[in-house]
Amino acid sequence: MKQSYIKYLEEIAGQDFVITDMEDKICYGYDSTRLEFMPDAIVKVKNAEQISSILKFANENKIPVIPRGAATGLSGGCLAVNGGISLVMLEMNSISEINTVDLLVQAQAGAVTIDVDRAANNCGLFYPPDPGSLKTSTIGGNIAENAGGLRGLKYGVTKNYVKSLELVLPTGEIINTGAVTVKSVSGYNIVDLITGSEGTLAIVTRATLGLLPIPKAKASILTTFPDTASAASAVRDIVAAGIITATLEFVDNVTINAIEDYLKIGLDRNTGAMLLIEVDGYEGAVQEEAEIVKEVCARNRCSSFRLATSDEERDRLWSARRAALSSLARVRPSTILEDATVPRSRIVELVEAVNAIAQKYSLSIGTFGHAGDGNLHPTILTDLRDKDEEIKVEKAIEEIFIKTIELGGTLSGEHGIGLTKAKFLKLEVSEDAYRLMKNIKKTFDPNNILNPGKLLIN
Amino acid sequence: MKQSYIKYLEEIAGQDFVITDMEDKICYGYDSTRLEFMPDAIVKVKNAEQISSILKFANENKIPVIPRGAATGLSGGCLAVNGGISLVMLEMNSISEINTVDLLVQAQAGAVTIDVDRAANNCGLFYPPDPGSLKTSTIGGNIAENAGGLRGLKYGVTKNYVKSLELVLPTGEIINTGAVTVKSVSGYNIVDLITGSEGTLAIVTRATLGLLPIPKAKASILTTFPDTASAASAVRDIVAAGIITATLEFVDNVTINAIEDYLKIGLDRNTGAMLLIEVDGYEGAVQEEAEIVKEVCARNRCSSFRLATSDEERDRLWSARRAALSSLARVRPSTILEDATVPRSRIVELVEAVNAIAQKYSLSIGTFGHAGDGNLHPTILTDLRDKDEEIKVEKAIEEIFIKTIELGGTLSGEHGIGLTKAKFLKLEVSEDAYRLMKNIKKTFDPNNILNPGKLLIN
Repeated sequence: MKQSYIKYLEEIAGQDFVITDMEDKICYGYDSTRLEFMPDAIVKVKNAEQISSILKFANENKIPVIPRGAATGLSGGCLAVNGGISLVMLEMNSISEINTVDLLVQAQAGAVTIDVDRAANNCGLFYPPDPGSLKTSTIGGNIAENAGGLRGLKYGVTKNYVKSLELVLPTGEIINTGAVTVKSVSGYNIVDLITGSEGTLAIVTRATLGLLPIPKAKASILTTFPDTASAASAVRDIVAAGIITATLEFVDNVTINAIEDYLKIGLDRNTGAMLLIEVDGYEGAVQEEAEIVKEVCARNRCSSFRLATSDEERDRLWSARRAALSSLARVRPSTILEDATVPRSRIVELVEAVNAIAQKYSLSIGTFGHAGDGNLHPTILTDLRDKDEEIKVEKAIEEIFIKTIELGGTLSGEHGIGLTKAKFLKLEVSEDAYRLMKNIKKTFDPNNILNPGKLLIN
Repeated sequence: MKQSYIKYLEEIAGQDFVITDMEDKICYGYDSTRLEFMPDAIVKVKNAEQISSILKFANENKIPVIPRGAATGLSGGCLAVNGGISLVMLEMNSISEINTVDLLVQAQAGAVTIDVDRAANNCGLFYPPDPGSLKTSTIGGNIAENAGGLRGLKYGVTKNYVKSLELVLPTGEIINTGAVTVKSVSGYNIVDLITGSEGTLAIVTRATLGLLPIPKAKASILTTFPDTASAASAVRDIVAAGIITATLEFVDNVTINAIEDYLKIGLDRNTGAMLLIEVDGYEGAVQEEAEIVKEVCARNRCSSFRLATSDEERDRLWSARRAALSSLARVRPSTILEDATVPRSRIVELVEAVNAIAQKYSLSIGTFGHAGDGNLHPTILTDLRDKDEEIKVEKAIEEIFIKTIELGGTLSGEHGIGLTKAKFLKLEVSEDAYRLMKNIKKTFDPNNILNPGKLLIN
């Protein structure tokens, strides 16, 4: 990057907030995909006005700008694939007082998800979206990816809680859009268009977020099944019984064995699949729902059923599910976490297809995830230093996606398209719809400076 | 319209489905605003392919096309303000079988809202959005306006249930967008951009809609207060107590008196305000919530509190609220139903401002609506044949909107901007955001043929 450009960025953001030395830049070249792309400059921004100035300048000079939160993303959304300026949002992390009447909070883009939730908790409220990375991830990143989480079935995803946004457009305009009211239909719904647009249409600087009252009671259940089909059938029957559980998590046999290798907590290695179920609400309702869940699981031949009676027991039940990814990650040098999502009714078919693909390519794939949402994470355990294996892995991933779409599913439930799935997007999106999306991108970002090389690449 | 154009439309849709005679056209010149604009031709379309052909033709020849459902809209969305072709969607009204595992139904745009709900009811499910016009309104119209309803606070609005759409773009392409899965983040969120875009970006032909299990129990409560402030304060305290009621309806003194004049059901004419509250869920939870609501109302000095103990009593309690609009409509020759929405915490200020404006212009304004959402319907009782009064009414409406925005509110909670509020939109939307919306419109509809003269007019 030209020295004069760097000088100008320093004028805008302050010399201490612009980083161009290679040693200092390195940790900004990665995200949770472990892919590496080096930006030319890192700017730690402090407000929307600075971002506006930087974008105007970048737009004039056609320099890529890539917003970056905590870099916990799993599709490469914050990587500087074409160099340019990495805009680090972490300094903008203020969280407003909680509005306990309107159930709202305002947070800057760099605020950490769990901090927003904790601020709400102090007032008897909670922020429902709970992506796996919530201890580190930022609200801006969550909005960019429309992050999901374990509570998606009952409580929805990030977009269901974003009421209004302060945005900076790629051409530098600062815009406030949306409304803090429960309902609003004034003009086009820019808020929901931006949410999930992966930082390619505008940079989110601040959001007003909806909150909910903390449920008075909850019940946590761990139940095991002899095979995937029975577990999946239990998932279907629970929903068909009219129960929308707070979480309904699935863990397959490969993952159970990886967890047992790691934690040695006495899981039965022959268990076909495990469900972790949580219902919440009022005491009486929770008991009633837990009772129905028990009946449904028994009817589907569960091999065991444990209802936690204390917080400690609840934590113990959850420790297995929480350890799923780290347990799988220990098995082989490389872990590729996918994000295939199908209608709930097609889960068995997806899991069986993944297992068949694993066998076909002699790969080890563990599958776990949010069964209630049909959002599963087939996780390929591999060694990408082995080039032959890398080719097999790529073929397997493509086959998983083709099958997912065939089952009426979607390429990504919560991780986004970003860099890693961009080449598959046309499996799901027709030529005409793809062209429409490209035209929308062009409307916002005529010079394609904002997060280029992501989402729409063809 | 040129005879050759009409001939071409007849070729596409069949001679019996194209109407150009004045007598036959008249009833297609109105909607529920009672404003009148005559289209040049009416085409009763039967499928997306016909619509595609018509739009290609209209786009080439720059003829306005206005989609029309049941015309129950309250902002003039389906009126042919510049003539052109009125596309009547009512023939496209099929409803698929209910998918009880994935909790989904597919409906064509012309399906009537209540028919979708009833189809779901037969399977123990329901379609939550419940606009006042649901017995007549169509799913396509609901999606165009992002229709709300009484259950908005707990269950959200139309957009929360639209999973995927079949659309025809103004340039004729037929597109399928969105996903039927619980979560999806594959590409830009076209579904939520179209929902609420008032038929100005694309014509919705089919939607996959989410459903929910019918709650096992409900409790209906009618409670009265000496003044608006106590009622509003009760609304705030109910939500602050952690209770998200299914409905939380407000009726003011003017409306109570109009209802009593009409129905003579023994309402106390001195009552300041009335709340109609419904909680639903499991039996035990419902009882617990009703108990808390009772305490909160007592603490806020309610003058009466009745909990319905039977379905008949529930119906009786609701009859007053249901009659609100028709009771007000009897008072004077013209009724103007507004749709001002503020954060829940500002309801008292809005109601007081409306009363002050009524006094200032010597107008009679009754206010009722969805207090839990902060979505109130100040209803001006007037006689628009009186030109002096018309001017006062216009001034009053403008002042109500200015106050609404001042209170952090939005011009429309659920009725849309359409024709009637288009001139006020810049009160809420900044110049930069307005320009962005116009650019989005242009991206979809380069020749401005689809529902011109609505929403964005400057």
